[in-house]
Amino acid sequence: MPNLRRYRIDPDRAFSLSSIDPGAKPFAEGSKDEQIALLDTLAQELDELQNLLHAENRRKLLLVLQGMDTSGKDGTIRWVFSRTSPLGVRVSAFKAPSEDERARDYLWRCHAVVPRTGEIMVWNRSHYEDVLVPVVEGWIDEDETARRYAQINDFERLLTETGTVVVKCMLHISKDEQRERLQARIDEPGKQWKFALGDIDARKKWDDYQRAYERLLPATSTAHAPWHVIPADSKRHRNLMVARLLVQTLKGMKFVTPAGDPALKGLVIE
Amino acid sequence: MPNLRRYRIDPDRAFSLSSIDPGAKPFAEGSKDEQIALLDTLAQELDELQNLLHAENRRKLLLVLQGMDTSGKDGTIRWVFSRTSPLGVRVSAFKAPSEDERARDYLWRCHAVVPRTGEIMVWNRSHYEDVLVPVVEGWIDEDETARRYAQINDFERLLTETGTVVVKCMLHISKDEQRERLQARIDEPGKQWKFALGDIDARKKWDDYQRAYERLLPATSTAHAPWHVIPADSKRHRNLMVARLLVQTLKGMKFVTPAGDPALKGLVIE
Repeated sequence: MPNLRRYRIDPDRAFSLSSIDPGAKPFAEGSKDEQIALLDTLAQELDELQNLLHAENRRKLLLVLQGMDTSGKDGTIRWVFSRTSPLGVRVSAFKAPSEDERARDYLWRCHAVVPRTGEIMVWNRSHYEDVLVPVVEGWIDEDETARRYAQINDFERLLTETGTVVVKCMLHISKDEQRERLQARIDEPGKQWKFALGDIDARKKWDDYQRAYERLLPATSTAHAPWHVIPADSKRHRNLMVARLLVQTLKGMKFVTPAGDPALKGLVIE
Repeated sequence: MPNLRRYRIDPDRAFSLSSIDPGAKPFAEGSKDEQIALLDTLAQELDELQNLLHAENRRKLLLVLQGMDTSGKDGTIRWVFSRTSPLGVRVSAFKAPSEDERARDYLWRCHAVVPRTGEIMVWNRSHYEDVLVPVVEGWIDEDETARRYAQINDFERLLTETGTVVVKCMLHISKDEQRERLQARIDEPGKQWKFALGDIDARKKWDDYQRAYERLLPATSTAHAPWHVIPADSKRHRNLMVARLLVQTLKGMKFVTPAGDPALKGLVIE
């Protein structure tokens, strides 16, 4: 199996998204049916590992999903967590901030939904939107952007030092793939509700967004909370790679089920 | 197929839990394998219906699960929602209220986690704990209990009048079945973390809790938010019956996928 390490972003080293082919499928070997079966196996493994995380009741896992429109954040969640219980996996989706949210610092709404002990929390978009849209739109300057990178790194260090394992994935699609997916949303009546005219405006700034990602990825890929770039033109590949990364991460947490309580030995319920 | 209606509690009509056999399995026909396959089919149907709920983006569904310790609230959630995405199904578990929660009225923490438009929310325990524990422990008198029933009915009417379909299930197990399940938690080291010594105290008050349920069920089973009692000694039956009830309820909502936006006709993405 290929090495996930190759897709992990090195801290503070200049990075170009063009160095990773969005159409690559290193983690999708075998036939279509084999890939589907493998994903189901990984999804079940994730369920078992989530149970151990819950039984241990000491640490938490945060999965951050970022990517351009149509890059497959929703689909990733649907398929990677197709075998886990909603008891143990929660999702928070971040949209444009509300008035109430804008009245606080940009990490406030994120802090409010960090995972609980024993839980997997998935952020569908995240605090990283605050170093994407404002950068592309020119609302914040270089100094402020750098300050935010540092604030984000500090925030994530707090999370990891207090028992949260942070996994960050950038779903990397090509501009051609996005065109096809947006067009499908327009042409298929059953998909039109997913389409927003604003998606076209963001697409016009494709290159600016790619550049913003190229800057934020190495600036916020730390030893405690590294970024992985996921080639995502192939949906099956994207799902398999994210599932692999999560399974590997959770296995690395080496769960120990709590020892039996000696007080319970021989206890008989009447 | 048997009629779910038979297990719906009539408003304000005296009710005895002994009129429903917790060991009954009316919704679990066929062999074990057939039952497992049927549950998977229902779980997939639920997934499709949840997608329609989400696409419609107008109404919500709230599932309230109540029952004695070990009655299978967690297991129901795990299996009934084994095919839905965590994007569309969320769970809130209610434990003994915190100091912060006790400083507000008892519906405050519930109102904070009502479902969003397009979402299924599951409450693992609920505001009904506030007409169970305090009643059994004698912390509130008859008048206060009656006031709470009325407050709960008013609260649930608000929810239904603002687009929430409320489904309430009482998972009904026998005292013998609870003994076996508690004993298994003590005897199997891998399950001990699920056991709390407090469970034994509540078990000692089994009859008081059954009586509290017998009072609250008809008092809060309304036309807008009826209660169903689910025979739950058989886990497969319990899952099948709750899944049936949800599928029937969601089908009754007659979803209409939003019409295509005329402005998008012929639009070509560049």
